[in-house]
Amino acid sequence: MGKTAIRTACKVSLDTPASEQPYLHNRWHPDIPPAASIKDGETVKIECLDWTGGQILNTDTADDVRNVDLTRVHYLSGPFEIEGAAPGDLLLVEIMDVQPFEDQPWGFTGIFDKGNGGGFLDEIYPSAAKAIWDFEGIFCTSRHIPHVKFAGLIHPGILGCAPSAEVLNTWNTREAELIAANKLADRDVALPPQPLNVHAGGADEELTAKVGREGARTIPGRPEHGGNCDIKNLSRGSKVYLPVHVAGAKFSVGDLHFSQGDGEISFCGAIEMAGVITINFKVIKNGMADLGLKSPIYIPGPVEPQFGPGRQIFFEGFSVDEHGKQHYLDVAVAYRQTTLRVIEYLRRFGYSDYQVYLLLSCAPIQGHVAGLVDIPNACTTIGLPMDIFDFDISPSAVPAKRLDMGSCAFETGVKEGKITAGGKNSEVSFGGGLSYKE
Amino acid sequence: MGKTAIRTACKVSLDTPASEQPYLHNRWHPDIPPAASIKDGETVKIECLDWTGGQILNTDTADDVRNVDLTRVHYLSGPFEIEGAAPGDLLLVEIMDVQPFEDQPWGFTGIFDKGNGGGFLDEIYPSAAKAIWDFEGIFCTSRHIPHVKFAGLIHPGILGCAPSAEVLNTWNTREAELIAANKLADRDVALPPQPLNVHAGGADEELTAKVGREGARTIPGRPEHGGNCDIKNLSRGSKVYLPVHVAGAKFSVGDLHFSQGDGEISFCGAIEMAGVITINFKVIKNGMADLGLKSPIYIPGPVEPQFGPGRQIFFEGFSVDEHGKQHYLDVAVAYRQTTLRVIEYLRRFGYSDYQVYLLLSCAPIQGHVAGLVDIPNACTTIGLPMDIFDFDISPSAVPAKRLDMGSCAFETGVKEGKITAGGKNSEVSFGGGLSYKE
Amino acid sequence: MGKTAIRTACKVSLDTPASEQPYLHNRWHPDIPPAASIKDGETVKIECLDWTGGQILNTDTADDVRNVDLTRVHYLSGPFEIEGAAPGDLLLVEIMDVQPFEDQPWGFTGIFDKGNGGGFLDEIYPSAAKAIWDFEGIFCTSRHIPHVKFAGLIHPGILGCAPSAEVLNTWNTREAELIAANKLADRDVALPPQPLNVHAGGADEELTAKVGREGARTIPGRPEHGGNCDIKNLSRGSKVYLPVHVAGAKFSVGDLHFSQGDGEISFCGAIEMAGVITINFKVIKNGMADLGLKSPIYIPGPVEPQFGPGRQIFFEGFSVDEHGKQHYLDVAVAYRQTTLRVIEYLRRFGYSDYQVYLLLSCAPIQGHVAGLVDIPNACTTIGLPMDIFDFDISPSAVPAKRLDMGSCAFETGVKEGKITAGGKNSEVSFGGGLSYKE
Amino acid sequence: MGKTAIRTACKVSLDTPASEQPYLHNRWHPDIPPAASIKDGETVKIECLDWTGGQILNTDTADDVRNVDLTRVHYLSGPFEIEGAAPGDLLLVEIMDVQPFEDQPWGFTGIFDKGNGGGFLDEIYPSAAKAIWDFEGIFCTSRHIPHVKFAGLIHPGILGCAPSAEVLNTWNTREAELIAANKLADRDVALPPQPLNVHAGGADEELTAKVGREGARTIPGRPEHGGNCDIKNLSRGSKVYLPVHVAGAKFSVGDLHFSQGDGEISFCGAIEMAGVITINFKVIKNGMADLGLKSPIYIPGPVEPQFGPGRQIFFEGFSVDEHGKQHYLDVAVAYRQTTLRVIEYLRRFGYSDYQVYLLLSCAPIQGHVAGLVDIPNACTTIGLPMDIFDFDISPSAVPAKRLDMGSCAFETGVKEGKITAGGKNSEVSFGGGLSYKE
Repeated sequence: MGKTAIRTACKVSLDTPASEQPYLHNRWHPDIPPAASIKDGETVKIECLDWTGGQILNTDTADDVRNVDLTRVHYLSGPFEIEGAAPGDLLLVEIMDVQPFEDQPWGFTGIFDKGNGGGFLDEIYPSAAKAIWDFEGIFCTSRHIPHVKFAGLIHPGILGCAPSAEVLNTWNTREAELIAANKLADRDVALPPQPLNVHAGGADEELTAKVGREGARTIPGRPEHGGNCDIKNLSRGSKVYLPVHVAGAKFSVGDLHFSQGDGEISFCGAIEMAGVITINFKVIKNGMADLGLKSPIYIPGPVEPQFGPGRQIFFEGFSVDEHGKQHYLDVAVAYRQTTLRVIEYLRRFGYSDYQVYLLLSCAPIQGHVAGLVDIPNACTTIGLPMDIFDFDISPSAVPAKRLDMGSCAFETGVKEGKITAGGKNSEVSFGGGLSYKE
Repeated sequence: MGKTAIRTACKVSLDTPASEQPYLHNRWHPDIPPAASIKDGETVKIECLDWTGGQILNTDTADDVRNVDLTRVHYLSGPFEIEGAAPGDLLLVEIMDVQPFEDQPWGFTGIFDKGNGGGFLDEIYPSAAKAIWDFEGIFCTSRHIPHVKFAGLIHPGILGCAPSAEVLNTWNTREAELIAANKLADRDVALPPQPLNVHAGGADEELTAKVGREGARTIPGRPEHGGNCDIKNLSRGSKVYLPVHVAGAKFSVGDLHFSQGDGEISFCGAIEMAGVITINFKVIKNGMADLGLKSPIYIPGPVEPQFGPGRQIFFEGFSVDEHGKQHYLDVAVAYRQTTLRVIEYLRRFGYSDYQVYLLLSCAPIQGHVAGLVDIPNACTTIGLPMDIFDFDISPSAVPAKRLDMGSCAFETGVKEGKITAGGKNSEVSFGGGLSYKE
Repeated sequence: MGKTAIRTACKVSLDTPASEQPYLHNRWHPDIPPAASIKDGETVKIECLDWTGGQILNTDTADDVRNVDLTRVHYLSGPFEIEGAAPGDLLLVEIMDVQPFEDQPWGFTGIFDKGNGGGFLDEIYPSAAKAIWDFEGIFCTSRHIPHVKFAGLIHPGILGCAPSAEVLNTWNTREAELIAANKLADRDVALPPQPLNVHAGGADEELTAKVGREGARTIPGRPEHGGNCDIKNLSRGSKVYLPVHVAGAKFSVGDLHFSQGDGEISFCGAIEMAGVITINFKVIKNGMADLGLKSPIYIPGPVEPQFGPGRQIFFEGFSVDEHGKQHYLDVAVAYRQTTLRVIEYLRRFGYSDYQVYLLLSCAPIQGHVAGLVDIPNACTTIGLPMDIFDFDISPSAVPAKRLDMGSCAFETGVKEGKITAGGKNSEVSFGGGLSYKE
Repeated sequence: MGKTAIRTACKVSLDTPASEQPYLHNRWHPDIPPAASIKDGETVKIECLDWTGGQILNTDTADDVRNVDLTRVHYLSGPFEIEGAAPGDLLLVEIMDVQPFEDQPWGFTGIFDKGNGGGFLDEIYPSAAKAIWDFEGIFCTSRHIPHVKFAGLIHPGILGCAPSAEVLNTWNTREAELIAANKLADRDVALPPQPLNVHAGGADEELTAKVGREGARTIPGRPEHGGNCDIKNLSRGSKVYLPVHVAGAKFSVGDLHFSQGDGEISFCGAIEMAGVITINFKVIKNGMADLGLKSPIYIPGPVEPQFGPGRQIFFEGFSVDEHGKQHYLDVAVAYRQTTLRVIEYLRRFGYSDYQVYLLLSCAPIQGHVAGLVDIPNACTTIGLPMDIFDFDISPSAVPAKRLDMGSCAFETGVKEGKITAGGKNSEVSFGGGLSYKE
């Protein structure tokens, strides 16, 4: 007798195109056929591709990042039918473990080109860039950002249950209104359903076409089900309570991250990877009403990497943009300023701005809302753990010793990322109200 | 031989009107006369009034909160001349301790009336309300929010060095531009200099008038010096690195908080108190350039109250407002939704919405930026420590047992706070871009 | 209305001899008259002298330590009658705060002379020595052990309820048996009742004499009531559950420590101080039986100083003594070896052995039982926090830079403490079994 | 390009007898042939059997535990030659990860029969017993100890470099002296070299015989190299600094533990398992002298499971044995009493003493030396995390609700473990000085 290996409910292939694998899909829709059925109370392993379905390679050029096809993301594993789950229930998802594949111990962080995806600082740092991370057990390092090593706060960027037809309609309607209201020429404010490159798992052609017409994109997360919430602390040992909207829950998961900083600022900002997530599922009947939940909640696990409180430098940022313009309680402007303060601080050790931008995206930085009621300045803070560096970055390290930091990967032929003036969208308060400008 | 008591550099009186005390002031201005001189390397105690200068009483009515005079806040202690400090230096402020006065072991949290101050949720909860907190050593409890006890994350809400004339001019100019651009009838977006009730410490009449005309208000914090940053973790043992803009630094401090949650959402949201802060001062010559700092940084102290990671419930919120309207990456909308999720969750135990609103303002909740690049939904999270309650609030506590929670204080004759539809300002994306609406 | 200052249930004087103060006592006995009465549920402040009753001065000589009168320790505050407490109950003691006196912000750590008190390493370090510590808020530093600063893990070394006559008799009997069995000429194994210098609070002469004849010494702690347990983590916010043996509980407290390391190895090893403890008392009727308790339990508070796990160096020690002799699972030998490993490690930075011995006694080192079943070697570990030093003590600091560390205080005319061969008692397994040698 | 899987330096088979596998050995000896060579700076995976080499099965009987052959333990993997390592160096071993085998996700905790191995409490609990633990990701549960789940503090029980001939001779000499001095009929005090069942890896017959005659047993750990130190916190991410005594270091590792409590009290007390450890090796030339090390030191990793300080119950124990006999500063007696206090506390929820004994051996309890200088009572504490139980064990859970706790495994036909009077060896101070009794 005795327990044997945990069942793998979904296997993926790193060699077959993601679009041809029947247990993957890249839209949210209630009708996508189930990949497998899982018992209430069961623990299973679920394999996942990286969010781009393998478009990004372990190389020293960012050409792949520059040219990434964003109609093809995210490839999620599932949907999984959980026995007994019904609308109004909660699905208690306990993340028992997340691991990269043993024979592919690496991941990537990308800065998307401003013209193809962009990111939080794209008005200042518009170039495509990339860092490859090597995994050794719990730790990662990068040849593109030397003198850094840290333990992964490993987690899925996306998990959630399928929307009902009604919930899906709500999403499409409200996002379409936002898109319709957008007056800005150069910036998408939301992504409407997109038939191009839709993948609906085992669906037949007709259903796939329907999913393409109606299915919600995997960007962004949404309040009704969580989805692409990119919460870095939703790591090993976390318990997530997910609203169920359709019979069987139709749970999907993907976008595994070896690590991420609060905000995941460069957009492809986590250490993106393929791997295996081990989950225990429990159905909580009538849980949405009993707990008064409209959105998911979670309780973190016990093994988050710990730094002492005195081993983090906290940077303060306010809603005055890089041109000195005052914004009204704009937390996004404040957070952007906070990230710039960290970049300025780390420059003197020899890192390029692009290296720090990549690092802040994926290292376990703490991004806090500090104060947001003292008009007109929202204040946010970022905690940067000192012990992820193998040299002293504390304020007492004066004068700073510059180290040879090499370079992150850029497009072929590019030696340095562009730095531009910034703040164009800040002028219309990027991060708030943009779409309402008239 | 042997060390005797630490020198008190500034004493205040709880019996004399704040406006008559010479070592207090309520504006930022380079010319306010120094309250005292402190040596480089010295540790001193500094007494402080509460931020309202004693306007709020330990009573069971919120009339005082309803009628608070906001032209008279904040009364800061100082400014203190630090020997040897010069523009371009950093002032290293180490917070050795913060304590309430031994004979006044209480503080208050207020929800300001929407018509007089307001707060983060004032469109939904417009009524004035109050909770009084009693202190016993490191802990506090409130007769207005029963079944809660927690250790204070005690800190000053405001600390910073005086602006130079040039910095002050920058502040006044950029905030005036924002005010000028505001098209919204019912909401101030910034507070211009205000001669009414100006208090400039020991200044003569002429100087006081000048400070009234030019002096920056103590609301908000500002990037150049920190000031009213309301960072809850800037507590005992923290080291803060403050930019120096004038000779002698002219450091001021005040607005002591026994505790605060990230965001300090109800505006008078911390547990406000009078008390004593013990600070060690060190001057770091040429520190601003050497460390590349434009805004303060800090390193937290070692004695923050600790809850296990598994002892906090994290709530997720997204930038879809309470009317279902989609906003574009508006972190403030997301954070507001997150707070509403907590209120909904705690209702079933018997608390009123106003009690939870007060509690989220002052209890040590963690407010994180989770993701802000997945258009159009910013996602924020709030971590609520379970162990501040003396009953089980975990998701497994089903069905919830309703307890007798009494009531927080309202205006005389009022039994319940009003609850209104919300979202008026959200429609123009309160929290971002408001002032740019045309 | 509103809360006023917390009641002080017991005041002490730093100017009057301890032996003349009526609310102090230095023996455990059921008949010592109560110092005050405290309500079930009440919170009070209790002032305490340092454990020697003021024998040790803030000076640079250890003459006072050399000549300390150990018949006069410990002066405890109390006993306090807790209303409603009866034998079989538990007294729930919640430590709301501990503070040094504001006008006496210093404490001391002593190494007792081998001939007068001794300590854990007295066979190697037999000389008297002393370090004075200055307090500034939560932190302490010492002119006698430079380059060290840490936050106090402040706590009472002694707290407990009075023994019943029966419990007292048990103590006296079993300790007398141990004393009778002792075959070793040069070492006391327990301290019998001692009429000399007995102080029984407000007792009359006759009762004082009785307490002198029968009263248990305050050294050691004992399982039935806790007492002198010297647990460093029993700090601010801790809840202690104390067995009650007499009507009214007759609770006493004293021996306040600003900080202590696990083991308090130098005997006068904590940072000993006078000060004020704030306690909330609750009676749990029939608690001993209901909880199955024979000895106290406690739950630590939330504000212990935190170092990251990666910021401590752990030293391993085994039960092979300094002469290479193998002992059988002797944890005390292992722990002694572990302390020696730390001394050897820190020597190269310039500290003297005596300075490190003092430091290990009072800094918040973690002393763990690692393994004690692998015959014949018990293994213990000591975790030394790196961040209490203001220079780098990590293993990567090679070669070590020697700093000018000055000196701790010795007896007048003594420049260096003696270092002797050690291990005399180890040969008969000091730390276990000593008294059973035949 | 890009990193491929990490090299496995040593593979083991779960199907072949341990004694026939060439890269395993069960003695410490400088001449055992190397299993593989590893580069300075390299990271490799090393597979390990469980410490018994597969003697214990995943069943519901403890017959296998009762009859375990202790001449055949521990099977260690190695020895590994580290390029460039020489006597006097330190080997820096960074534990990148430890994992059970994916297809064997279980482990065991045993209580050895007093007549065959015994354990820390064998005089009270002499029967053989067993608990099987199932692993799901970071968590474990046991059908033999219900209502408990916790994250593993996964670590190797044994790691170290081979002794030189001189060091080996020191070990054999001093342990032989202890054995010779033992006057006690019924208890071994150390294990001499033992030719029976010696396994010396790839050694030929002659060398194997030599290793059998001279080789040190793997029980206990020893100060010169660490070895079987059973330190629970030496887990993922730890850096261990190991003295090197022979050319190439000849590093061995084994005895993997999914979890362990401080003391590993039941002897086979960890959750013993087979699995894979991933290690990075670095040689620090001349490190022993440069760092002043006689024994290993280590720095813990960042991912230890965290409980809040307020989520542990600490039990106090003193050196008065279960018969009321007073011992002199005997830390082992105190620790034994502390474990008994926990057993008494948990009984009322329905657990048997044997279940708690097993649990205290393997769950991450904190065992601290509290005070060991207050004659005659040593005081130790054990911190029991409340959140490993799925019901409320806090002191406020009164009256306790008894749950159906089933049973741990005993020998065939045995329903309950024996409970005997205890304290026989305590009378001669078991845990110290035993061998010196005359």
